[in-house]
Amino acid sequence: MSPIDRLTSLFEKFPGIGPRQARRFVQYLLTSSPALRQDISEQIRSLGTQTAQCKKCYRWFTKESKSVLCPICGDEHREKSLLFVVEKDADIDNVERSNYKGLYFVLGGIIPLAAEEPEKHIRLRELLRCAEEARPAEIILGLSATTEGDHTREIIQEKLRLPAQTGGFSPKISSLGRGLSTGSELEYADPDTIEQAFGNRH
Amino acid sequence: MSPIDRLTSLFEKFPGIGPRQARRFVQYLLTSSPALRQDISEQIRSLGTQTAQCKKCYRWFTKESKSVLCPICGDEHREKSLLFVVEKDADIDNVERSNYKGLYFVLGGIIPLAAEEPEKHIRLRELLRCAEEARPAEIILGLSATTEGDHTREIIQEKLRLPAQTGGFSPKISSLGRGLSTGSELEYADPDTIEQAFGNRH
Amino acid sequence: MSPIDRLTSLFEKFPGIGPRQARRFVQYLLTSSPALRQDISEQIRSLGTQTAQCKKCYRWFTKESKSVLCPICGDEHREKSLLFVVEKDADIDNVERSNYKGLYFVLGGIIPLAAEEPEKHIRLRELLRCAEEARPAEIILGLSATTEGDHTREIIQEKLRLPAQTGGFSPKISSLGRGLSTGSELEYADPDTIEQAFGNRH
Amino acid sequence: MSPIDRLTSLFEKFPGIGPRQARRFVQYLLTSSPALRQDISEQIRSLGTQTAQCKKCYRWFTKESKSVLCPICGDEHREKSLLFVVEKDADIDNVERSNYKGLYFVLGGIIPLAAEEPEKHIRLRELLRCAEEARPAEIILGLSATTEGDHTREIIQEKLRLPAQTGGFSPKISSLGRGLSTGSELEYADPDTIEQAFGNRH
Repeated sequence: MSPIDRLTSLFEKFPGIGPRQARRFVQYLLTSSPALRQDISEQIRSLGTQTAQCKKCYRWFTKESKSVLCPICGDEHREKSLLFVVEKDADIDNVERSNYKGLYFVLGGIIPLAAEEPEKHIRLRELLRCAEEARPAEIILGLSATTEGDHTREIIQEKLRLPAQTGGFSPKISSLGRGLSTGSELEYADPDTIEQAFGNRH
Repeated sequence: MSPIDRLTSLFEKFPGIGPRQARRFVQYLLTSSPALRQDISEQIRSLGTQTAQCKKCYRWFTKESKSVLCPICGDEHREKSLLFVVEKDADIDNVERSNYKGLYFVLGGIIPLAAEEPEKHIRLRELLRCAEEARPAEIILGLSATTEGDHTREIIQEKLRLPAQTGGFSPKISSLGRGLSTGSELEYADPDTIEQAFGNRH
Repeated sequence: MSPIDRLTSLFEKFPGIGPRQARRFVQYLLTSSPALRQDISEQIRSLGTQTAQCKKCYRWFTKESKSVLCPICGDEHREKSLLFVVEKDADIDNVERSNYKGLYFVLGGIIPLAAEEPEKHIRLRELLRCAEEARPAEIILGLSATTEGDHTREIIQEKLRLPAQTGGFSPKISSLGRGLSTGSELEYADPDTIEQAFGNRH
Repeated sequence: MSPIDRLTSLFEKFPGIGPRQARRFVQYLLTSSPALRQDISEQIRSLGTQTAQCKKCYRWFTKESKSVLCPICGDEHREKSLLFVVEKDADIDNVERSNYKGLYFVLGGIIPLAAEEPEKHIRLRELLRCAEEARPAEIILGLSATTEGDHTREIIQEKLRLPAQTGGFSPKISSLGRGLSTGSELEYADPDTIEQAFGNRH
């Protein structure tokens, strides 16, 4: 296949990109300067050598020193008693915009409802080991408010509550509050959200 | 003005209706049977004589007996210890889809941020009297999760907490829980919702 | 049924209105003044007595004099050599925003692809009689650029071209030009539109 | 800057890509296999060496032989009497989905309304030379139906009609037909499109 067609089909596999936009990407690159193409090409190649997955939270980060920990896990000023468990790296980026100051753990996926072997979909074993080693006072299960998120949360909760799984350590386990999200109106809230908001009234 | 133009301009004032849809409504009526037009005309007229505003919760209802109370306020099986305060009738329709079984009070509006006389925008005096008379164990302030909703909630809270305003009665006052609404993903939640969800974790 | 529920279900049959908006309409009327309700009720009722369908073009209009013709058909300054055939009244409102100055004829519908008796769906007989009487120099078939519009256009064209149908009169019959509509970009035009635009190049 | 941040900011410059999607692209690459990253990196680099811009129509193509012409310009079976002038490569991809069988010329841009030196925005000189050398029977100006497209079309038309500009050669110059695009309804057409459709009736 020609590089134009080949690259188009590679871009089509990018998240959220269809055939038309993939072709526009290639056109963009064709009319860009050789220096810019060289830069992009180089940066993509160096992802493999200059980035690493944090040994503690499993988030991807850029290797700047010889540290095997990402900047958050390596930051002494973060609140080490809190461990926020999320599905993916992008969730961390978003939570960092709030004023949370604790640590994270990236599950790397979510457990489908019909999954027979949950641990094939998320880093369950790694989470248990992380909990055992880090011994946070509280583990916050920051899964999305979806059916799969709830399913994943329940499976993790069950495992974390078995002392045998965490070397005898029993952390407090919490889940994010459910209710009206900022900006939403009562008239348009779904019944489940109203029930959660009612149950979590304060 | 002709009835076609007059009716078009009347429909334009309906909530959410623009000039084009207003004209389509008139076309729809023009090509409908005289019997249907007669029916609609009659029903609109009879709203004034066959409906009433509940003397207790201020919701509109159809007069079926001589009762001055709406079907919910008149229902002996509703939980009388809970009073759910909402902005408008449509909020009640929506909350009724959840499993809430208590009573309601309709404020009839929301207080704009810059309002100098809050009581001109909502039924504040009526709410205080309702609280004093009904003496519910708990008043749930079910305002929307918007800036104006928060503002209205704070003003009501303040008044309800002054015993002088409610004849010495001090009910428990609660607000709906904030957090991730059902179906929402952590990656796309706004910082304020994340902070609320974190603060309301359980 | 109560007037609130009855009116809600009547509004749900209005074009483009769902259950939620129908309820909002009723709320809007409930909280409106009795005078406004009276006005709307009256205007809807008077549609039957104060409006009429034009004897020539079949458009609905407000009766202001004893004329059986709508203001356009009765206007001596309109160009009588042009007859613009449209599906519905709203099309006339839109064409009037352009600088067209001729006459109209409203078909009152469109012929479904599988229709066995086309004349049951549109005013075909009336159009033929109108053509015979008015004898315009040109009949413009202003159907929508959809499959059903094309189908309707072909059936009308065929009939209009049979002299026996129009009392021996043979008008020029034309269709609206197809091509790029104002504001559309070549990159996103569909193949059919490109072919039409290419075929109609000038 | 780290390769993660650097690559994110490079992807943000891709057409239609914002910060969030740029980050998702980087995540996608981080969790892809080194072989896939290597492939993408290589294909981007080889765009510079394995692709070329056609010497005749200025479209980008993959060099497969030593030809300096793209596959369309080099195809002996295309209709050489027709030259379809478009703004960009993607327009050709779209026109090729119709049944057009002639040649193309890519302007490489569009002339902004306020441009003082039009030839700095499009390949005007190259088009004139192409017209002089290829001597097509007809040049179709396939600009978008936008204000800038019309502006560009008028400037090109003027130049192409000066014999001194094209070595004495006077081709027929045409523009794409305007009117209702396929699928559009008369009720929602804008006045300008209705006037174009009326003017181009047939």
